[in-house]
Amino acid sequence: MMTALSELQALLGEGGLLQAPTHDLAAYEKDWRGRYRGRALAVARPASTEQVAQVLRCCARHGIAVVPQGGNTGLVGGGVPDGSGRQILLSLQRMQAVRALDAHNLTLTVEAGCTLQAVQDAAAAQGLLFPLSLASQGSCTLGGNLASNAGGTQVLRYGNARELCLGLEVVTAQGEIWQGLSGLRKDNTGYDLRDLFIGSEGTLGVITAATLKLFARPRAQMTALAACPDLDSALGLLSLARHQAAAALTGFELMNAFSLALLGRHFPPLHQPLAPCAWTVLLELSDSESEAHAQSQFEAILSEALSQGLVSDAAVAQSLAQSQAMWQLRESIPLAQSKEGLNIKHDIALPLSRIPAFVLETDAALAQAFPGVRMVCFGHLGDGNLHYNVQAAEGVPPQEFLTQHEAAINRLVYDAVQRYEGSISAEHGIGQLKREDLAARKSPVALNLMRAIKAALDPQGLLNPGRLL
Amino acid sequence: MMTALSELQALLGEGGLLQAPTHDLAAYEKDWRGRYRGRALAVARPASTEQVAQVLRCCARHGIAVVPQGGNTGLVGGGVPDGSGRQILLSLQRMQAVRALDAHNLTLTVEAGCTLQAVQDAAAAQGLLFPLSLASQGSCTLGGNLASNAGGTQVLRYGNARELCLGLEVVTAQGEIWQGLSGLRKDNTGYDLRDLFIGSEGTLGVITAATLKLFARPRAQMTALAACPDLDSALGLLSLARHQAAAALTGFELMNAFSLALLGRHFPPLHQPLAPCAWTVLLELSDSESEAHAQSQFEAILSEALSQGLVSDAAVAQSLAQSQAMWQLRESIPLAQSKEGLNIKHDIALPLSRIPAFVLETDAALAQAFPGVRMVCFGHLGDGNLHYNVQAAEGVPPQEFLTQHEAAINRLVYDAVQRYEGSISAEHGIGQLKREDLAARKSPVALNLMRAIKAALDPQGLLNPGRLL
Repeated sequence: MMTALSELQALLGEGGLLQAPTHDLAAYEKDWRGRYRGRALAVARPASTEQVAQVLRCCARHGIAVVPQGGNTGLVGGGVPDGSGRQILLSLQRMQAVRALDAHNLTLTVEAGCTLQAVQDAAAAQGLLFPLSLASQGSCTLGGNLASNAGGTQVLRYGNARELCLGLEVVTAQGEIWQGLSGLRKDNTGYDLRDLFIGSEGTLGVITAATLKLFARPRAQMTALAACPDLDSALGLLSLARHQAAAALTGFELMNAFSLALLGRHFPPLHQPLAPCAWTVLLELSDSESEAHAQSQFEAILSEALSQGLVSDAAVAQSLAQSQAMWQLRESIPLAQSKEGLNIKHDIALPLSRIPAFVLETDAALAQAFPGVRMVCFGHLGDGNLHYNVQAAEGVPPQEFLTQHEAAINRLVYDAVQRYEGSISAEHGIGQLKREDLAARKSPVALNLMRAIKAALDPQGLLNPGRLL
Repeated sequence: MMTALSELQALLGEGGLLQAPTHDLAAYEKDWRGRYRGRALAVARPASTEQVAQVLRCCARHGIAVVPQGGNTGLVGGGVPDGSGRQILLSLQRMQAVRALDAHNLTLTVEAGCTLQAVQDAAAAQGLLFPLSLASQGSCTLGGNLASNAGGTQVLRYGNARELCLGLEVVTAQGEIWQGLSGLRKDNTGYDLRDLFIGSEGTLGVITAATLKLFARPRAQMTALAACPDLDSALGLLSLARHQAAAALTGFELMNAFSLALLGRHFPPLHQPLAPCAWTVLLELSDSESEAHAQSQFEAILSEALSQGLVSDAAVAQSLAQSQAMWQLRESIPLAQSKEGLNIKHDIALPLSRIPAFVLETDAALAQAFPGVRMVCFGHLGDGNLHYNVQAAEGVPPQEFLTQHEAAINRLVYDAVQRYEGSISAEHGIGQLKREDLAARKSPVALNLMRAIKAALDPQGLLNPGRLL
């Protein structure tokens, strides 16, 4: 290991390799939620793809495991080292170049360490749009977004990170560089390596750069809030909005009454335009014509929804500031939830048609098994993706609640998700957090296929071991 | 082999196994273009996923290779047996069930042997849209569409077959059934097996069913033709149309002057609304509001394009019949080309921004090396996908031309495609036809990754051997 470290030091030069105690590695060794805290042999900070390849070749030679890390904003412990002190933490944060923007081809090639915000800004500087949008966009990196196939608030229209990527540059476990930075919309020349690396959470290769899809910027973006009496009505509204606005419908977010009540408690200055109701939907239209056109679309959708009884009340934003305030309501829910105290998060996806029955049944089962628990249910209804979070009963100390009930609550929720043909990880990935759940719940055939692929591409098992599989 | 055949006969029953000379296997053994003609040990026609699994287990036990086949409409010889008489042709045509349609979830689950037309019809019967659209849709099957990641005329808006599929059911080389028929828009639980099987041309597993994305049907579809003086103008028009119409722009097809001249020669009754020009573009708008709205969008786009000099003339369809007639022009080009005689086809993709220079340079190089050759250049410009086909000089016997020059012309074209960072197979796949080109032109790192995956999933090498890799 000492040989390996001195080789890495020589490869990466000053500032390229950080070791304790000379350097404080804490920021790399623990995740931001404080659930995972490891210890790295060292932190390697390569500045180029060639350096990443050299690091991986060196680690392969010496049999040292490598944990890739981007902005360290993940939610499942996929990017921090284990406690052994024998893993190299490979930070991509120095690789931040915007390599190329092709406005006619609507593509942007960036290095893995670019923050999502920087990618959005590079597109915007040319009057174009990179639509991936997440709460952590100021610090999460594109490499991490792709390694975890990030979702966010624009998936309904533009898809997950996977759908927004045309090509990748990847360093393999053997330290070879796969140059797959294609800007092509169509390319049927062999297996889809790109999509295999996307979402593999650093266990099959290290993404060093990507070519991304850009879009024309819409002329107007407008939002509205709608009060729905139940989830069937919310789905009816979705269906109606889709038929009326098609791809112009870029957001369809759900918030239950308790989510908004928490906002009222912890962020009283946030204005809530509608009276409390069972379910509030935030709709967003992105219009290529004009604000007036978006407004008339909203009027058509919402008046039809009112007359069908799908909606009991609605408010259309009259300005950009009002639109942003509506989004702020939706985006402040996780913060309000933290202020209320620790809670048990479930990032689940379900077929849309099964969501009403799932929520009714699972809410009831939780209420019966854990009297007084409070459900914070919100998320990307248009994608079938709910953040179905469980907060302790009023007055119950959250930490105690988690210690006693987290495992049983997870089991109850995930059992229901499986019965309803859903996913136990819609957009956050598996990492360490859900690795055992995946092993227990995924079909053995699927797991065997995944293990065969892992063994084929990383036979030494050095890439992010103990994550995902 | 005789043991295997009697086992298969017992498994599949009457009509489930066809053997020569009792049955005429010709329709299964040759491709429709007549380029490939093989000889099968037998044709297995399973009627269920379980039967497919039994066939594959039997073949794995006996070490017999299997060639999956759908509608046998492929263009690269991927679905016909070799000449050895030792391969089982596995036809999926008896598996035609529409298993489920979920209108709220916008998903449709069908078996692999459904024709594309049947899938479109099942969606339309519920007022919904399955947008994949190809010339062969009456006979090609969904399984084949996915195995080859088919493209077609709606990719600009809806993506390739890959983007239209949410989940798969696949039988592995070992005869296990992977039940991955998810109807979820988001599911980050492990490696993307779905996209690995899609486009793998039957070499990694046999697709038996799929869950597909559906869309709201647009209220109106309208087309227009525009005359562009050069390819830069055509790209300028594309950019303008995208900014104005965003996702409502569902088609942007290109035709060069000679393509339309061939139509005039071989299909004189087809009305050509515009006077001959260097490049003609067919635009399609799919409008969620009304025909009038689509019409006003076209007027805005085309008047702006005329004033910018991107377009010298244009015609907007005034009726559904006129729209269909415009599409018929585009779709009749391959037929007109066959009537003109054998030709050398190239299904290529390029970054959009590089298309004008590629075409200028390659047209000139071909004209110099092969005086008098006539270029039939048309295709899906919006996707960067050209059918860049070379027809013998006027009066030169086509077969002679092919025999003498096909290899050299392919080399010239594919060398240029590589220089311009394009793909030698945009939407048709590799099969037998381009297998050697792939091996010669794909990066060794990519080929090694593909071979490692193939060896991991099909260690006996029994699935569609000699195709793709």
